[in-house]
Amino acid sequence: MEEKKIPYKIYLEEEEMPKEWYNVRADMKNKPAPLLNPETKQPMTAEELGAIFCDELVKQEMDDTTAYIPIPEEIRNFYKMYRPSPLVRAYCLEEKLQTPAKIYYKFEGNNTSGSHKLNSAIAQAYYAKQQGLKGVTTETGAGQWGTALSMACAYLDLDCKVYMVKVSYEQKPFRKEVMRTYGANVTPSPSTTTEIGKKILERHPGTTGSLGCAISEAVEVASNTPGYRYVLGSVMNQVLLHQSVIGLETKAALDKYGIEPDIIIGCAGGGSNLGGLISPFMGEKLRGEKNYRFIAVEPESCPSFTRGKYAYDFCDTGMVCPLQKMYTLGSNFIPSASHAGGLRYHGMSSTLSQLYADGLMEATTVSQTQVFEAAQMFAKVEGILPAPESSHAIRVAIDEAMKCKETGEEKTIVFGLTGTGYFDMVAYGKYNDGVMSDYVPTDEELEKSFALLPDVE
Amino acid sequence: MEEKKIPYKIYLEEEEMPKEWYNVRADMKNKPAPLLNPETKQPMTAEELGAIFCDELVKQEMDDTTAYIPIPEEIRNFYKMYRPSPLVRAYCLEEKLQTPAKIYYKFEGNNTSGSHKLNSAIAQAYYAKQQGLKGVTTETGAGQWGTALSMACAYLDLDCKVYMVKVSYEQKPFRKEVMRTYGANVTPSPSTTTEIGKKILERHPGTTGSLGCAISEAVEVASNTPGYRYVLGSVMNQVLLHQSVIGLETKAALDKYGIEPDIIIGCAGGGSNLGGLISPFMGEKLRGEKNYRFIAVEPESCPSFTRGKYAYDFCDTGMVCPLQKMYTLGSNFIPSASHAGGLRYHGMSSTLSQLYADGLMEATTVSQTQVFEAAQMFAKVEGILPAPESSHAIRVAIDEAMKCKETGEEKTIVFGLTGTGYFDMVAYGKYNDGVMSDYVPTDEELEKSFALLPDVE
Repeated sequence: MEEKKIPYKIYLEEEEMPKEWYNVRADMKNKPAPLLNPETKQPMTAEELGAIFCDELVKQEMDDTTAYIPIPEEIRNFYKMYRPSPLVRAYCLEEKLQTPAKIYYKFEGNNTSGSHKLNSAIAQAYYAKQQGLKGVTTETGAGQWGTALSMACAYLDLDCKVYMVKVSYEQKPFRKEVMRTYGANVTPSPSTTTEIGKKILERHPGTTGSLGCAISEAVEVASNTPGYRYVLGSVMNQVLLHQSVIGLETKAALDKYGIEPDIIIGCAGGGSNLGGLISPFMGEKLRGEKNYRFIAVEPESCPSFTRGKYAYDFCDTGMVCPLQKMYTLGSNFIPSASHAGGLRYHGMSSTLSQLYADGLMEATTVSQTQVFEAAQMFAKVEGILPAPESSHAIRVAIDEAMKCKETGEEKTIVFGLTGTGYFDMVAYGKYNDGVMSDYVPTDEELEKSFALLPDVE
Repeated sequence: MEEKKIPYKIYLEEEEMPKEWYNVRADMKNKPAPLLNPETKQPMTAEELGAIFCDELVKQEMDDTTAYIPIPEEIRNFYKMYRPSPLVRAYCLEEKLQTPAKIYYKFEGNNTSGSHKLNSAIAQAYYAKQQGLKGVTTETGAGQWGTALSMACAYLDLDCKVYMVKVSYEQKPFRKEVMRTYGANVTPSPSTTTEIGKKILERHPGTTGSLGCAISEAVEVASNTPGYRYVLGSVMNQVLLHQSVIGLETKAALDKYGIEPDIIIGCAGGGSNLGGLISPFMGEKLRGEKNYRFIAVEPESCPSFTRGKYAYDFCDTGMVCPLQKMYTLGSNFIPSASHAGGLRYHGMSSTLSQLYADGLMEATTVSQTQVFEAAQMFAKVEGILPAPESSHAIRVAIDEAMKCKETGEEKTIVFGLTGTGYFDMVAYGKYNDGVMSDYVPTDEELEKSFALLPDVE
């Protein structure tokens, strides 16, 4: 097949696994903008952040100069239970497409959370434990992050309170049950367990909740309960740092076989997977050592990079979290209910936002039906039923491979396959039944949302 | 941790993967009894079997002398997409139990079917394709087998008709949707698409179906539709042959580190996983080279080995399949609806039955609540949410490890972790809510069922 025989799956040896995370901010000339206090509009201090987040995570959040941060041994041991994840050569997909391109994907779905989220969940839970805390709070939408955190907390014997968006809680009872099996306390949000929840329920008695509201509830509980802090699964710098394990493993696996990628593709919701995957490669680009094309793929229903504003915005609808400078659709923006493909967050990692603003990466959008079409084709030839989120990257990887077919170029394409779609069968069902529709927000909708952006100099 | 450092997960290199299946029957002094024609009670001929099964699979079914059978390259390539599966050292479980025992498990759940079933599905679909068939039919209960076969057929572009027990079809819509995504045609059974289905619906209009009925429908369609054959996921000799890839990989991984198992444990429903896991080790025992303890673990609600009769019986309730000599509870036996832990088949692989009859392996039963207790503990410390079926083996592995703790023995225990429990959250929910009950069939129930065994000399 190849001159140098490349196996279907490249696994690193245990001793080849990364011992340090890579902090891409250290190599950035233009650093991501600092978090601001939502009331004073001044940069958040470590002390202020420490009321919400664990101390060590606050340090990691603010550290934009240390390139390599050691991964504590206990986290590395946990990683060994489900990592290294395979870097897969998509021989069957290449064959199906009849493309000269060489396609690889880093598959993060081989763990019970079903996604890459576990990489940061164990890190955040570990630092909470180290700090002597009793437990952590968080929000979850579809449930991957909540599941990952439940698993990490069960392993470390830490209490875990999850606020799950009510509509997901009711429509995805299995996800909730997985979290309960791992000992987590799962509350549908909005709830009467918080002041914010009560207020929202008074104002909108029939509401099925939103991620922004669940965040506000989780933050409130963390702030009011001694021995608890809030943790979250995407967007933040600390999360990108932990997720760099994806990119470091990918790079080590490619290096082992002397493979040089041309294009690296990832789906982008809050940016944790994409940021983690591209970090070490972006580092090379920032240091002028290499030149790669990076492509962020968004749903056209929630196009933060491609149609958002680069501005300070709220991370939650309750407006209790710090302000973050990022590409955003406005914290009130919620994609149409007809959107089933995930990646619904209104904003984007501030690190990735700065890199995008500096022209160091590209972004593109794809429609939902294009995404599911790619997902099904991939499932049939590669044998893995992908998460809708991950399938955004599959779609663009296929499109790039087809361009190679036209031009005859033998490009090497790497994409992130963040997870599996086992809990997304309602969405697949819609696609199978031919009743899936596409949604594109109008300019008017976006302008209305942008008008509510906070006023920050 | 160890003098010779053993990683958390032992992965074979691609070139170390088995190139031949091992047929344990070749080393058995007492061969499994032949299949009988249900009407004439005479041994089935290859020609008779060929009306139902693919020709090459009939050969494999009847071949009890060839020890090694080459795995065709196309099947090996498919295996490379999700195999080798890891042999995991359960360091965290050992730590939790504070046992001197060394525990390993072979994890077969890292593929979209969620279990080991894919190992035989691709083989059976391959031979159907080779024979120039248009498609295959099968039945599925919980859905793992149906999913595995759908995946294999999608890969080979073969039509796939699945008869799914109606109660599962309705209660597990996600499983059905996975199969549809892979292009399979899924029909709730009993259905009006077959004569047997129509008869059963006339007699029992409100029935929610049974595995035995779904088998009969699938066999009828295969017999009546030109270009189709019937395939099935357990019990048969051919299935054990294909599943030997599990044991061969396990043995290769252990050999690589010079590890000698003392006890090998597997759950037993129809016997495909257990048979596959123990085959090469049993071969050593049969040839007098080694002595291992093998333990088959059954649910106490469906105790074929431990309370069944070793006799010829029907494989299906429609009584259209060949008679098989096996440990059986009678083809009319159905465990109580309160049993949620899988492994519900009334009979057992005839190969394993003969080995058990000859005293070469042990069998034991466990209660459902004990199984889920072990499953939850395992999930928390090892990070994998196990299938209820697999958790039978976990339970006994833990029990054996605890005996080692008492005696101080450093035994090496290997068990089969056949799959994940992502589609079993209704059962987990019952356990989490404390409303799971145990069921043990009475002697009277079993006697009543035994009375209906066919009269074969």
